[in-house]
Amino acid sequence: MALVGKKFPNLSVNAMNEMGDTFQMNILEEAQENNKKVLLFWYPKDFTFVCPTELHAFQSALEEFEKRNVMVVGASCDTPEVHFAWLNTPKDNGGIEGVTYPILADSNRNLSSRLDILDIMNESYDDETGAITVEGDNVTYRATYLIDEEGTVFHEGINHMPLGRNVKEFLRLIDAYTHVQEKGEVCPANWEEGKEG
Amino acid sequence: MALVGKKFPNLSVNAMNEMGDTFQMNILEEAQENNKKVLLFWYPKDFTFVCPTELHAFQSALEEFEKRNVMVVGASCDTPEVHFAWLNTPKDNGGIEGVTYPILADSNRNLSSRLDILDIMNESYDDETGAITVEGDNVTYRATYLIDEEGTVFHEGINHMPLGRNVKEFLRLIDAYTHVQEKGEVCPANWEEGKEG
Amino acid sequence: MALVGKKFPNLSVNAMNEMGDTFQMNILEEAQENNKKVLLFWYPKDFTFVCPTELHAFQSALEEFEKRNVMVVGASCDTPEVHFAWLNTPKDNGGIEGVTYPILADSNRNLSSRLDILDIMNESYDDETGAITVEGDNVTYRATYLIDEEGTVFHEGINHMPLGRNVKEFLRLIDAYTHVQEKGEVCPANWEEGKEG
Amino acid sequence: MALVGKKFPNLSVNAMNEMGDTFQMNILEEAQENNKKVLLFWYPKDFTFVCPTELHAFQSALEEFEKRNVMVVGASCDTPEVHFAWLNTPKDNGGIEGVTYPILADSNRNLSSRLDILDIMNESYDDETGAITVEGDNVTYRATYLIDEEGTVFHEGINHMPLGRNVKEFLRLIDAYTHVQEKGEVCPANWEEGKEG
Amino acid sequence: MALVGKKFPNLSVNAMNEMGDTFQMNILEEAQENNKKVLLFWYPKDFTFVCPTELHAFQSALEEFEKRNVMVVGASCDTPEVHFAWLNTPKDNGGIEGVTYPILADSNRNLSSRLDILDIMNESYDDETGAITVEGDNVTYRATYLIDEEGTVFHEGINHMPLGRNVKEFLRLIDAYTHVQEKGEVCPANWEEGKEG
Amino acid sequence: MALVGKKFPNLSVNAMNEMGDTFQMNILEEAQENNKKVLLFWYPKDFTFVCPTELHAFQSALEEFEKRNVMVVGASCDTPEVHFAWLNTPKDNGGIEGVTYPILADSNRNLSSRLDILDIMNESYDDETGAITVEGDNVTYRATYLIDEEGTVFHEGINHMPLGRNVKEFLRLIDAYTHVQEKGEVCPANWEEGKEG
Amino acid sequence: MALVGKKFPNLSVNAMNEMGDTFQMNILEEAQENNKKVLLFWYPKDFTFVCPTELHAFQSALEEFEKRNVMVVGASCDTPEVHFAWLNTPKDNGGIEGVTYPILADSNRNLSSRLDILDIMNESYDDETGAITVEGDNVTYRATYLIDEEGTVFHEGINHMPLGRNVKEFLRLIDAYTHVQEKGEVCPANWEEGKEG
Amino acid sequence: MALVGKKFPNLSVNAMNEMGDTFQMNILEEAQENNKKVLLFWYPKDFTFVCPTELHAFQSALEEFEKRNVMVVGASCDTPEVHFAWLNTPKDNGGIEGVTYPILADSNRNLSSRLDILDIMNESYDDETGAITVEGDNVTYRATYLIDEEGTVFHEGINHMPLGRNVKEFLRLIDAYTHVQEKGEVCPANWEEGKEG
Amino acid sequence: MALVGKKFPNLSVNAMNEMGDTFQMNILEEAQENNKKVLLFWYPKDFTFVCPTELHAFQSALEEFEKRNVMVVGASCDTPEVHFAWLNTPKDNGGIEGVTYPILADSNRNLSSRLDILDIMNESYDDETGAITVEGDNVTYRATYLIDEEGTVFHEGINHMPLGRNVKEFLRLIDAYTHVQEKGEVCPANWEEGKEG
Amino acid sequence: MALVGKKFPNLSVNAMNEMGDTFQMNILEEAQENNKKVLLFWYPKDFTFVCPTELHAFQSALEEFEKRNVMVVGASCDTPEVHFAWLNTPKDNGGIEGVTYPILADSNRNLSSRLDILDIMNESYDDETGAITVEGDNVTYRATYLIDEEGTVFHEGINHMPLGRNVKEFLRLIDAYTHVQEKGEVCPANWEEGKEG
Repeated sequence: MALVGKKFPNLSVNAMNEMGDTFQMNILEEAQENNKKVLLFWYPKDFTFVCPTELHAFQSALEEFEKRNVMVVGASCDTPEVHFAWLNTPKDNGGIEGVTYPILADSNRNLSSRLDILDIMNESYDDETGAITVEGDNVTYRATYLIDEEGTVFHEGINHMPLGRNVKEFLRLIDAYTHVQEKGEVCPANWEEGKEG
Repeated sequence: MALVGKKFPNLSVNAMNEMGDTFQMNILEEAQENNKKVLLFWYPKDFTFVCPTELHAFQSALEEFEKRNVMVVGASCDTPEVHFAWLNTPKDNGGIEGVTYPILADSNRNLSSRLDILDIMNESYDDETGAITVEGDNVTYRATYLIDEEGTVFHEGINHMPLGRNVKEFLRLIDAYTHVQEKGEVCPANWEEGKEG
Repeated sequence: MALVGKKFPNLSVNAMNEMGDTFQMNILEEAQENNKKVLLFWYPKDFTFVCPTELHAFQSALEEFEKRNVMVVGASCDTPEVHFAWLNTPKDNGGIEGVTYPILADSNRNLSSRLDILDIMNESYDDETGAITVEGDNVTYRATYLIDEEGTVFHEGINHMPLGRNVKEFLRLIDAYTHVQEKGEVCPANWEEGKEG
Repeated sequence: MALVGKKFPNLSVNAMNEMGDTFQMNILEEAQENNKKVLLFWYPKDFTFVCPTELHAFQSALEEFEKRNVMVVGASCDTPEVHFAWLNTPKDNGGIEGVTYPILADSNRNLSSRLDILDIMNESYDDETGAITVEGDNVTYRATYLIDEEGTVFHEGINHMPLGRNVKEFLRLIDAYTHVQEKGEVCPANWEEGKEG
Repeated sequence: MALVGKKFPNLSVNAMNEMGDTFQMNILEEAQENNKKVLLFWYPKDFTFVCPTELHAFQSALEEFEKRNVMVVGASCDTPEVHFAWLNTPKDNGGIEGVTYPILADSNRNLSSRLDILDIMNESYDDETGAITVEGDNVTYRATYLIDEEGTVFHEGINHMPLGRNVKEFLRLIDAYTHVQEKGEVCPANWEEGKEG
Repeated sequence: MALVGKKFPNLSVNAMNEMGDTFQMNILEEAQENNKKVLLFWYPKDFTFVCPTELHAFQSALEEFEKRNVMVVGASCDTPEVHFAWLNTPKDNGGIEGVTYPILADSNRNLSSRLDILDIMNESYDDETGAITVEGDNVTYRATYLIDEEGTVFHEGINHMPLGRNVKEFLRLIDAYTHVQEKGEVCPANWEEGKEG
Repeated sequence: MALVGKKFPNLSVNAMNEMGDTFQMNILEEAQENNKKVLLFWYPKDFTFVCPTELHAFQSALEEFEKRNVMVVGASCDTPEVHFAWLNTPKDNGGIEGVTYPILADSNRNLSSRLDILDIMNESYDDETGAITVEGDNVTYRATYLIDEEGTVFHEGINHMPLGRNVKEFLRLIDAYTHVQEKGEVCPANWEEGKEG
Repeated sequence: MALVGKKFPNLSVNAMNEMGDTFQMNILEEAQENNKKVLLFWYPKDFTFVCPTELHAFQSALEEFEKRNVMVVGASCDTPEVHFAWLNTPKDNGGIEGVTYPILADSNRNLSSRLDILDIMNESYDDETGAITVEGDNVTYRATYLIDEEGTVFHEGINHMPLGRNVKEFLRLIDAYTHVQEKGEVCPANWEEGKEG
Repeated sequence: MALVGKKFPNLSVNAMNEMGDTFQMNILEEAQENNKKVLLFWYPKDFTFVCPTELHAFQSALEEFEKRNVMVVGASCDTPEVHFAWLNTPKDNGGIEGVTYPILADSNRNLSSRLDILDIMNESYDDETGAITVEGDNVTYRATYLIDEEGTVFHEGINHMPLGRNVKEFLRLIDAYTHVQEKGEVCPANWEEGKEG
Repeated sequence: MALVGKKFPNLSVNAMNEMGDTFQMNILEEAQENNKKVLLFWYPKDFTFVCPTELHAFQSALEEFEKRNVMVVGASCDTPEVHFAWLNTPKDNGGIEGVTYPILADSNRNLSSRLDILDIMNESYDDETGAITVEGDNVTYRATYLIDEEGTVFHEGINHMPLGRNVKEFLRLIDAYTHVQEKGEVCPANWEEGKEG
């Protein structure tokens, strides 16, 4: 079922920060307890080509998000150890050195399977052994969630694997939603802050 | 399950065109048989405020979509008769006069329930009568699907009710995807045609 | 199961009045709390040909119903917004301008599916997606319900789509039933007030 | 589910004619094979007050129905023997002497339970004996069906027990439906033959 | 399961008396509360040939039964209204005028289905409509029950439709059973009061 | 379900004749293949008081039954060996010496459980052992069946344990049924051969 | 499951003694309350050839069993009445006159079905009637149980129908078991009292 | 269900002979293919006190069994290796040196669980692990089976753990059964070859 | 599911010690209550070739295990009696004389089926008899468990039937695990006490 | 169920080699088609401390394994991309540069869930969303499998997370198993090539 208009799932997930600390993060609580918006973006795998570009793009725009009281969180199904190794790899070597926002390490897929954004299909159950076999790498699509200060999802979007995201569009959506929150107005298409609605 | 990376559902739905003709439209076949991309956007209800703005915005950009071989289709759960009445209502009166792309009239909700974008929740079944009672108006969220020439969904996104869409972002996504199709390159974040990847 | 002799379903439904206000209406409570009879008539769709004729016919006879302490309520599965647009469309343009009784907007079909008067058939369930596909437009037949002051249905009737209703016959049925209520007499065929039973 | 718009059930039922012959009658076949419309009206019980009045009213108008190629059939759950006794009871003694149309004797309730017009409720099943106990007399409501030459139901209506029917309204409905059949026009409210639609 | 040796079912049924009053009768309570034996005999239908003969035969012997403290009750599945009409039909016209014992009107078949004496067979259930279709007229066989003062059945017998009953044999069975009750002796075959056992 | 009007069960059962031969008897086939009526009477137990009286009564009337082309068969759940011992016990010692008709030995209860005339109740199933425990001696009531030449049951009756049967009543029932068979007339109550119907 | 090493079933069964009294016997309670061993032997049928021989053999050895504090009980599925008739039949006529130990009359098969020693097989269930049909006479095999003072079975054995039992072997088994009870020694093969183990 | 009167189970089991060879033995086939009777005796465990005594007793009488065309087979749930070790242990050390008949090694309990002679009870199933826990050592009682040349069991007996068997009684049973086979006579109690029946 | 990281099953099993005493042993309690590590090794069968070699090897190293506070326990599915016989068989005759650690006698397979180390497969269930037939000897593989002082398994390994174990490797694993316990260090590959990690 | 003695699962899994190529590897086919033994070792995560030590230890001994015709394969649930990044990380930085054997990238857990070696427990299923939540990181224990040329597992072992493996022990097990294969001898404990068995 679509998540828009509902609360984000209440789950704690492993995460890694730039210090190399592994800690537990609950997106819903982050939003509600800190009275912040959250932008949560998923990418398929660490140590690949498209992904670091996106991660750097969000890092470059981090100040813009913070001005809008938005917490940015990245996420993949790699382990905290792998995130840390990637964080320590220079950008020139395909790493994400310099990224300062936290990155979820959903290695047990608790959150991504709840969001239904894993690239697996055709599950087959082996009666004899009780094991499940799937097709696909069991990693996530390029899904993005915008969550407001009450934990309600106000945008969700998924791009096919090879398709990068546009950071500015998320800023626009956040501004438009904030405008609705503050002004009680419904926001027409193509709305942009400062332009005529 | 996320639709991205999969074929769009193979279903025929009533639709209304600017001539007032009711006809059957199958989005998957439209894409495959005409070798076109399709942008399908859903809005909650005819005769409301935000919706016509979006409908006019897509109309204004229609030439841009057509240059890119993209068919634009609107959709709500109102009947063809209601679409026609709205199409005949001048823009100044809150109507959508001037819109020329077809609009799906999914009054039986066959397609929207398949896409899981209806705003209903908490279904309760009455054992005695066999009837189902729901909460919500049983209309769709502001969901958008980008579909390629083979009928594969390459982007899906849902906005919360009061939040309008950005037509330009869809043009960007289409260009980026076409770039991947043509160049075999994977597309980095914030990519725009003519800019450096 | 036939509703005659039983209480009308206890459900609240969206409704639109001539002022353009959307409000919740519960037919059973209207009857019981206001100690009124209710005539509830369903028509398939707004903005069609037969329907407005019927809606105007009930409007013309409204005084007759009110003299008999009967509340008239129209109903379709269109949204309140569409009802309002139609109420603002002049009669000459196929609209229902001038109608003053409320009209139910059962867009979520809670009441019409409970009454089993939707034109859908051959439901098929898709195991993979959990979605249900139906044949038919998912709009109502031309069904009419007469309900007494205790909320008990004393007449129900359904006409096939192209067949209009006779407002006088409902007045006759109401008079005959009132006669039974007041006189404790059972009412013979073709009974009319003032004529010999 | 509403029967309107669907074929009448294909079932043979015992019937009694004025000659005292018991025979089998299948309403669907009567319509289709004789290319006639059928008016089938149910009443609760033989030898009661309201019922004979209605039976006589239909008899008085029989010529009108026949002019319109409509077969009139009465029906209750009494046996053919009881129908015959009632047919032989003078009108002054509360009988229906003079009625010439056939009357269904649905003593096994095959048809009336299929139409769901029996006044029983709260079935309870006795596990030990396998017997079913119900509330109500297990007789029918005052239900009426109008069926066209193809066996399709175009009107169904049910009156509460004490409420008699209006023969003229059925003539009007038949005329209106015939008008639609012949003229291909949809029939507005309060339509009457010869009047302006 | 055979009822002999067990209590008669504890059910209230509509009944008609010679005054034309409809009332509720519970055979088990009649026996226990009045400390009487009961002879309950079922016949298929009112207004038929064999049945009135039996009804008159029981009436003729009524004094004999009453001397033995036995209540006689007739029963069929016709309605009280039909019983009353038949009670008002002279014997010469095939009626049962003159009968003074009460007659059960088991129109809802609660008791006769519990006793399993209805002539229906081959029930078939229609999955689509939930209705049950049967063969047979859904009337009772010629079943007889003898019940003692504690409500225990001490004889049950069923005759095929065309076969009348022998009132004297029931008097013999009652006398023999009373003999067992009073003398504590078991009764040999062909026993008759006053004869040698 | 009542057996009257249906074929007698098609089952072979052990039986004993006066010669001491054990053989298999199928009541249905006896009737159909020999074109005879059958009177089958059950008694609870060999070597008891009431039973031999009944068995002798049927023996005394055997000629009357044979004149009417009726085969008499006794039956209990004792073994053939016990029947034979009882047949060899003089009448004065409580035996049935002199009985010449066959006696079923339904020790496996195949037929009596099919007829549902065993005096057992309150079956309880032991989950652990799979055994069934009952109350009652698991012997038959005093049940009698009259079967015609086609194997159809036309009378069934059950007497409580201590209550003997009346042989003459069975002769009367047979004569009345034969009268119906031959004359095509339905038989009124208290009918006797040679008397006025 | 084998009964050896477990308590004998706790069930009361009809029994007949030499006085002709029918009474209830519970083998488990007999053993426990009287602090006795019990030898219970089953035979197929009264009034047959092998069986009386065995019954006389146990009678002849009765004193030996009583010296060892063992109660002897016979058992079949015949009724108490049949047992009494057989007990009154002289030995020369194939009877068991002179037998003084009690004989169970398990006519309802409660105990024998619990012990699983009935000769029935291939049960088939008739869905329509709910009756069960079996092959076999529903009588017991020649089964023997030795039960100690606590009600525990210490030997069970079953012989095929035509095979008689050896009374002495049971005396040997009882002596050997008593030896184990008294001496706490385990008993070697072929052990006999007074011989070397 | 008792095995007497039925075929012995058709199963192959590991066995050990005096040579130390492990081989497969199927008791049913041994009887049928060699046209021999079989005496199969089970004991609880190798290397215990009672058991070797019984094994030696059967060895001592082996010639008597062979004269009667009877094959003797021992059986326990120990492995072939353990049987061989015990066969190599001198009698004085508690071994069974000198035994020449084969011994089944039913370590997988296929046959003993089929015969239901294992001393386990109170199985409890662990849902989490799928493992079954029992009480008891999972070894067999002292059960004995006599099987004829067609594989039919004609005697089965079980002794409680501490109770040894009597070899002579089995010889007697075999002689008696052979007598029945040859003479067609049924065998009275206490029968012995050469003695009067 | 793998046992490593979880508590060893809490089950009591028969065991034999060198004194010939049968007693109950619960591995989990042994570890926890004595604050010891446990090495539990399973072998397929007593009285075979490979097994005694392994049992002697563990005996030779017993002092080394005890120095490390480790209890050594052997285990197979043979009975305590068989273990005792083997313990009394000199090493030169293939026995295990000299072994002083206890040996589990899991004849009822409670523990080995819980550990899922039995060599059975292809279970087939016989519906008629309720017995289970398997392939394989129902003995254990060569499985080894290392359990710490809290009852947690820290190593499990299984060798195919013909493959002996290496006692030194278990000493190494114990030392490495103890090192982790004491030093809080994680242990690299090939670690050995006193060597550089 | 234990895998020892059975074929290794027939599944293809992603793998990475030192060249950075991602390819599919099926362990069972590798063994069977190349006629090689396989040592497959699992470790929990890339970029951790213990793991690289083990990976280097296997690399150092690689020549020894190859001399014995054994293929060495590592495995974790990280992606091929992460394996490649680790392979390119120098040993001094905690990387595994220099490792030349392939490493399985079982990111979809098809093989590890089939082997039941993941550290997850307490699965809980969310009825509303259909998602499964687990405890644990969903990575593998330190499990090792030795597989022969026919694909049969001859050793499996699992170490708790902090416990490293001993490469030499695996060489010993391989040599011992090869010895059994070549010499047909069963291998005693502590066996080593060249030493006395």
